[in-house]
Amino acid sequence: MEEKAFQDYYPDDVSHCYGCGRLNEHGYQIKTRWDGDETITIFEPKSYHTAIPGYVYGGLIASLIDCHSTGTAAAAAYQADERGMESLPPYRFVTASLHVDYLKPTPLGVPLEVRGTIKEIKGRKVVVTSTLSANGVICARGEVVAVQMPDNLLSSS
Amino acid sequence: MEEKAFQDYYPDDVSHCYGCGRLNEHGYQIKTRWDGDETITIFEPKSYHTAIPGYVYGGLIASLIDCHSTGTAAAAAYQADERGMESLPPYRFVTASLHVDYLKPTPLGVPLEVRGTIKEIKGRKVVVTSTLSANGVICARGEVVAVQMPDNLLSSS
Repeated sequence: MEEKAFQDYYPDDVSHCYGCGRLNEHGYQIKTRWDGDETITIFEPKSYHTAIPGYVYGGLIASLIDCHSTGTAAAAAYQADERGMESLPPYRFVTASLHVDYLKPTPLGVPLEVRGTIKEIKGRKVVVTSTLSANGVICARGEVVAVQMPDNLLSSS
Repeated sequence: MEEKAFQDYYPDDVSHCYGCGRLNEHGYQIKTRWDGDETITIFEPKSYHTAIPGYVYGGLIASLIDCHSTGTAAAAAYQADERGMESLPPYRFVTASLHVDYLKPTPLGVPLEVRGTIKEIKGRKVVVTSTLSANGVICARGEVVAVQMPDNLLSSS
């Protein structure tokens, strides 16, 4: 049986994200897992996730890097605290800043691989760098500053 | 009659972008126009474009800033060359880098306003800064480095 993804541990009330929520039927429902010290997400865009014909839409690339990185931040926080991802209270991170460098056009029609590295953990902040590859070629690089979600954010919904 | 949007001038073969292509029936089909020296896009997310309940998904915010900025870059290039947007050859820009600072949670259920400012035009490069507001409050800031699309990019599709 395949190992559960980080997103499979998210509590129900934070599992509606368009990018990574398993309960959002319209969304991407990305799945991120450890691969050694790195994290990995594989995602195959639909044909309409296009920018110019034949290439992947940059907004999707930014979205994948974003949710991959907040998931990685949560996993890193559990790991740093030597806690299992099923333990309570849950860690959930939101994005403070997102940076993407588009290095070359990303071909459409093949699975994309996002790989994340934890650059820094400090207090409630985790910095994650990542690459997005197609056919083994790095097409984009990302850096996300993720911060632990304020406790009061859900109460206002 | 409302003034045509920048995206309405894009040639058909570059009008399939998920963010801004008028021919992508699945996409956002954003519309950007001049407002004085600034550019403006108004977009109302769907209920499923959520991050945590009640707030807009950050990947959508990045996507809006991205396509708003490439459209603004094209309009700025026409303006700099004192050309109409219907004149040939067409200018079309792609994103070299995208940076978004998420300043506060963006409420879902109201129209979002993206405002762009042309920071720099140099050769084939245009830098656009932008704000994204909801209910008159700035929730995110963006900076996009856009570059004129290489002529050979379409031929490989």
